Amino acid sequence: MPHRLLPVAAIVASLATAAMSDPLPSWNDTDAKARVVAFVENVTDPASDDYVTAADRIAVFDNDGTLWAEQPIYFQFLYAMDRLAVRAADDPSVLTSDVLRAAAEGDIAGAMAGGEEGLLEVVMQSHAGLSVDDFQADVRAWLDTAVHPQTGQPIRDMLYQPMLELLRYLRDEGFSTYIVSGGGVHFMRAFAEDAYGIPPSQVIGSAGKSSYQIIDGVPTIMKDPGIAFIDDKEGKPLGIDSKIGQRPIFVGGNSDGDFAMLEWATAGPGPRLGLIVHHTDADREWAYDRDSHVGRLDRGLDEGPARGWVIVDMASDWADIWP
Amino acid sequence: MPHRLLPVAAIVASLATAAMSDPLPSWNDTDAKARVVAFVENVTDPASDDYVTAADRIAVFDNDGTLWAEQPIYFQFLYAMDRLAVRAADDPSVLTSDVLRAAAEGDIAGAMAGGEEGLLEVVMQSHAGLSVDDFQADVRAWLDTAVHPQTGQPIRDMLYQPMLELLRYLRDEGFSTYIVSGGGVHFMRAFAEDAYGIPPSQVIGSAGKSSYQIIDGVPTIMKDPGIAFIDDKEGKPLGIDSKIGQRPIFVGGNSDGDFAMLEWATAGPGPRLGLIVHHTDADREWAYDRDSHVGRLDRGLDEGPARGWVIVDMASDWADIWP
Repeated sequence: MPHRLLPVAAIVASLATAAMSDPLPSWNDTDAKARVVAFVENVTDPASDDYVTAADRIAVFDNDGTLWAEQPIYFQFLYAMDRLAVRAADDPSVLTSDVLRAAAEGDIAGAMAGGEEGLLEVVMQSHAGLSVDDFQADVRAWLDTAVHPQTGQPIRDMLYQPMLELLRYLRDEGFSTYIVSGGGVHFMRAFAEDAYGIPPSQVIGSAGKSSYQIIDGVPTIMKDPGIAFIDDKEGKPLGIDSKIGQRPIFVGGNSDGDFAMLEWATAGPGPRLGLIVHHTDADREWAYDRDSHVGRLDRGLDEGPARGWVIVDMASDWADIWP
Repeated sequence: MPHRLLPVAAIVASLATAAMSDPLPSWNDTDAKARVVAFVENVTDPASDDYVTAADRIAVFDNDGTLWAEQPIYFQFLYAMDRLAVRAADDPSVLTSDVLRAAAEGDIAGAMAGGEEGLLEVVMQSHAGLSVDDFQADVRAWLDTAVHPQTGQPIRDMLYQPMLELLRYLRDEGFSTYIVSGGGVHFMRAFAEDAYGIPPSQVIGSAGKSSYQIIDGVPTIMKDPGIAFIDDKEGKPLGIDSKIGQRPIFVGGNSDGDFAMLEWATAGPGPRLGLIVHHTDADREWAYDRDSHVGRLDRGLDEGPARGWVIVDMASDWADIWP
């Protein structure tokens, strides 16, 4: 087992420190919080045997279901449906499949019939034909007004306050924080800096094909049809290796799509922390895991605890959920 | 034209400052140096209309022929030949083409018969079958002893001192410095931090295919046969968009393989600087441009000056070349 149990004394000491100036005020004082704080204090203490230099303090987080909500469907898919409807109004011939037709009609259930890869293809197809700059301006404009189809809450407010605090805490302690998500990299970069304080270069995601073109004399990067990279499951450690080139020491996720990156990162030498957000709060958010079509969490629940991963119970470990 | 001419007063002022504490001591006091220093002082001066916040001070550099030498062949290719010879000694069946056979025999001319894409394929094929960790350990071991086939100089010392100073100067002035090179990303990361002070996450390069595997219970990233991404020509702006997600304001290169990224970066709004290292010094290094099979520079020489790019004449602009 790569996990190292921290001495009780270290946990008690870290709780005492936390009580003085709590970096995670939206977390209840449970074991999950204590283990996170103890880990961070351990790797940042120059006197500790587990001290990690700042250059190696790499922390990566999934986005959908880990940093913001993902029910009843990935929010990028809501954007894709809205955008596809706009495109189809101009040119109905873009709707070449039942899934695309359902998506353009705002029929979430019908659009989801193609499974997760079908969702991603709808996203990629609906996103093509724009420059990256125009696409990101469109995403930002959409986020200014988009509301959740069930709660009516602005989509941009459906971030998890405890995770915002965790990101800030890690950066305050010298960590570099990255997003490593199945979401589209251009989509996430449109808001990651504002929402999470994470700059474009620290956002890793799925990607459609793209091309470099001179359009009316202007060098332009265009989003093209087709999928170039899917940053999910085994794609996550590969994406991290490709873009960061270092194995993270802190990894947060919420679904089995994050299993491989948790497995890889926590198997490295030295101190490592894996964290899984378990959606257990049907009152304040949603409750789902093994049987969910979005953010399915099964193997992580079975194997995570024995691998030393912190399983965050949203209902009991988080005092607040929304900012 | 995206280029803005700087007022003479700004150049004179920057030369005066440079004389007091010269950030680029290996550069002669010519126009090239003056323009680089004036640009950096302009974008870092909060009182300047051209002030750029540190988050947007992205500088990217080609590697082969820009930060270190590349004659008579890319140094990664020398490594590939040595490694292929080792592999072929174990299993001659890996040598499936004339180019591969020539490479394994150390026949540089024969190995170059396949052109630039052939070279890259030899590199990728010879690099497969190792984990990323083992590969990088092998590259570091090779660099500890590898010497140049013509000069006998250690390969690891064939860096350009003026460019090392430029990298340091830019970082001291709040820039983030990246490598964006046709060289292999795993290869360059094995030495980029030591050689240039550039961490793995700021190295963008060509990539072979890779896979995530559990080998004897150990999560491992393996280098596989085949090419996943060629970071050359139009691939360079695409690689920058994919990995950095911001358009650089400072771009250095030396060949037409860098033309697209220079074109794209310097076409952006606000102050921009493109720089081309022109290899003009047959005595201290090599002299080559339009007709070279490696690092061919043709269009950049024709169009660079009118586009406002600084063409660095190694013979006259650099007082020293090697560290």
